[in-house]
Amino acid sequence: SASSSEDLDQVRTLLQLCVDRQYVSPGPANTELFQRGMSCSYGPLGMELRRNLLEQWWHSVTRSTAQVLGINTLNSSTVSETDGQERLRIVESGSLKQILGEQELSKEQLIKRLNMLLQRSPSVRGNLLQGALEQFVPLWGLVNKKLPFGLAETGLCFLASDGSGCPAEVMQTSLAWFCSPRTSSQWLDHWTRQRLKWWRKFALSPSDFSSSDVPEEELEEVASRGVRITYSFPWGPEPLETLLSRGSTELLNTHKGAHSKPLVRDGRKSVPHVVSVTGNMDRGVMAYLSNSLQQLKKEDSKQKLHQRKVLKLHPVLAPVKVALDIGRGGTMELRQVCEGLLQEMMEAEISVWPGYLNTLPTSMEQLNAKYDEMGVLFTVVISENTLESGLLQVRRRDTTIKETMHISEIKNFLSRYISAADNV
Amino acid sequence: SASSSEDLDQVRTLLQLCVDRQYVSPGPANTELFQRGMSCSYGPLGMELRRNLLEQWWHSVTRSTAQVLGINTLNSSTVSETDGQERLRIVESGSLKQILGEQELSKEQLIKRLNMLLQRSPSVRGNLLQGALEQFVPLWGLVNKKLPFGLAETGLCFLASDGSGCPAEVMQTSLAWFCSPRTSSQWLDHWTRQRLKWWRKFALSPSDFSSSDVPEEELEEVASRGVRITYSFPWGPEPLETLLSRGSTELLNTHKGAHSKPLVRDGRKSVPHVVSVTGNMDRGVMAYLSNSLQQLKKEDSKQKLHQRKVLKLHPVLAPVKVALDIGRGGTMELRQVCEGLLQEMMEAEISVWPGYLNTLPTSMEQLNAKYDEMGVLFTVVISENTLESGLLQVRRRDTTIKETMHISEIKNFLSRYISAADNV
Repeated sequence: SASSSEDLDQVRTLLQLCVDRQYVSPGPANTELFQRGMSCSYGPLGMELRRNLLEQWWHSVTRSTAQVLGINTLNSSTVSETDGQERLRIVESGSLKQILGEQELSKEQLIKRLNMLLQRSPSVRGNLLQGALEQFVPLWGLVNKKLPFGLAETGLCFLASDGSGCPAEVMQTSLAWFCSPRTSSQWLDHWTRQRLKWWRKFALSPSDFSSSDVPEEELEEVASRGVRITYSFPWGPEPLETLLSRGSTELLNTHKGAHSKPLVRDGRKSVPHVVSVTGNMDRGVMAYLSNSLQQLKKEDSKQKLHQRKVLKLHPVLAPVKVALDIGRGGTMELRQVCEGLLQEMMEAEISVWPGYLNTLPTSMEQLNAKYDEMGVLFTVVISENTLESGLLQVRRRDTTIKETMHISEIKNFLSRYISAADNV
Repeated sequence: SASSSEDLDQVRTLLQLCVDRQYVSPGPANTELFQRGMSCSYGPLGMELRRNLLEQWWHSVTRSTAQVLGINTLNSSTVSETDGQERLRIVESGSLKQILGEQELSKEQLIKRLNMLLQRSPSVRGNLLQGALEQFVPLWGLVNKKLPFGLAETGLCFLASDGSGCPAEVMQTSLAWFCSPRTSSQWLDHWTRQRLKWWRKFALSPSDFSSSDVPEEELEEVASRGVRITYSFPWGPEPLETLLSRGSTELLNTHKGAHSKPLVRDGRKSVPHVVSVTGNMDRGVMAYLSNSLQQLKKEDSKQKLHQRKVLKLHPVLAPVKVALDIGRGGTMELRQVCEGLLQEMMEAEISVWPGYLNTLPTSMEQLNAKYDEMGVLFTVVISENTLESGLLQVRRRDTTIKETMHISEIKNFLSRYISAADNV
């Protein structure tokens, strides 16, 4: 259909823009990982965007009314496979080659040695939940066995290949929520609402983010109910975050040796139930980039029709809040003014792009087009006029309106704007 | 010697305290990783401490006068081994077992199949430098081939085992600094000074951090000169960050296919030189914990002599800035006051410990001892008096002095204190 070819065009435009504007490193293999919602090699802007997204996730989950503790567990573990799942293992290629090179081994001896090597090799994690289940006992004690209670973690996970032979990396977020059995279904609903609201909060078109029940046939065995938060990509919906009501089976299995005693609260018999909230922040990055790209037709000063592309990323997520550039005037003096402003903004923790360092002779229009594609919120231009009167020009990405402001006001103006956006 | 047995006592005390106070998860294997300066399973406080340390590192390196861009490269890569180094590879245990189970294969066929599997399996990174070298060309273009120029990254790396058979994880920091050949030695000195100053800035005993040249026989082959920043642990010095002047060989090798043309600046013939700054932030966490533990003899109210242990972590690094607790009075009402204060502080991004949620009947002395061991900067106690007059009590970790303050002032007082500490 015509609409689907338009959709594909849109995807191509987005991917090209992400490479051109340093969200994603060049290369077809890398762009493919990015599109599939896997970790890829990010450029400076993509790195900053994912960092902002992870920070927002962290705040939204740990600033809950009940106590949520952050943890950081190991990626690799030497625990033997009890669940029958085939894992990805880290093998020292030298050790393996050495065994393969031993001429005197029979085929049977060779197989035995290789199985031993495999047993000894640690597996890398495919999700963060197991780590949280292991940490539950000491940390629940710390909060005097109160329920509900949560453990949060973000970190790299490795997913087995889908036939391509190459495992993929993904930046996962995980909230393990422990609650009394009779409330677990309510908590699943609570977190579904909270999470959907969070995803929509930063969206340009909130309705592209939605939630739906996981069909029973797709549920993991331990889970009694599940919900997915999905984003409608041009090629179809993909899950961003999955919420599962998992009961207490895994928690009991993890602490088998402990005879479940540390899992029981005084005077009650029930073991806490687990609600897991697992997110893929690489796909989150892709979703917000996809969601925020606007293509507008626009006339330039010579009345030629142009396609204007703007990444309208939410102010909180935008990797660069302000670009500093220079207009007409003595370059050396203008750069010195920029240098001072740059330091001032860095100290105020405003993410700033020192465009004045790199600007080749170009028109203001080309410059604005570049910053719009980068998603930069404000462009500040220092010119001769600034040296004379202290006035500079500020352009807003979202309105393209230019204002004149005194140089002494710009830092506070930006700080106020950013913190207002943060408190929405 | 007597001193060394005292030193060992000190190490034992520190490790026990780190486990008791949720810096590090329990278990002898985990504590050993921690002591060796490897990633371990961190508790909530250790996670927050490492996060603060990484953030400070990031600011100190990217807020330089020259442009430093952040990147985020992939952990695993399928690039074949050209440097002859044996790598850690991620192998799908299912695929390996399947090959081992194929009865009809001869020994030779088995070996061939396994070598092919190994070739196909991606290797995990042992450092972040290679990723930066690969990203150099497109990003250097972005800044119009200006020198000096830096690429910064933080991330998990895997180190081959030292005979234990089990690879270790480590949270590395990496600055790849590109400069003109004639300035590389000066830049090595510049970064050595900058890094040593940074490490000492957060130390209780700055002289425990020092720098020394890497002996020539320990230098990597490509490096012409190197410096280590080390911390003097009770058992001896260990490197925290290593700076190496590496020349241009690796950069040229990485971009071999590109015929080195993109590596040359117009009108000059030389290829940029690389200075690498590689840090281990897990060992950094261990160093600061070790450095900040003070043991003081103290009389309690019954004139019994106690050993008071305080983690005097720098205000910027301390994972918990303030603990909220309740004294005498109606618990329900006091908790409501705490709830309000907690929300207010969270919104101001002050890291707060909701002690009032978990406090079992205990004396104020025991509570203070606990918070001192956690390294909490301030303890705020809400009591009956607060309900009547709005006054609360604030205790400082570093002086043990208690002040009375109005509840309306406490948030601003803490914010000011923290931001002042940040701007030292």
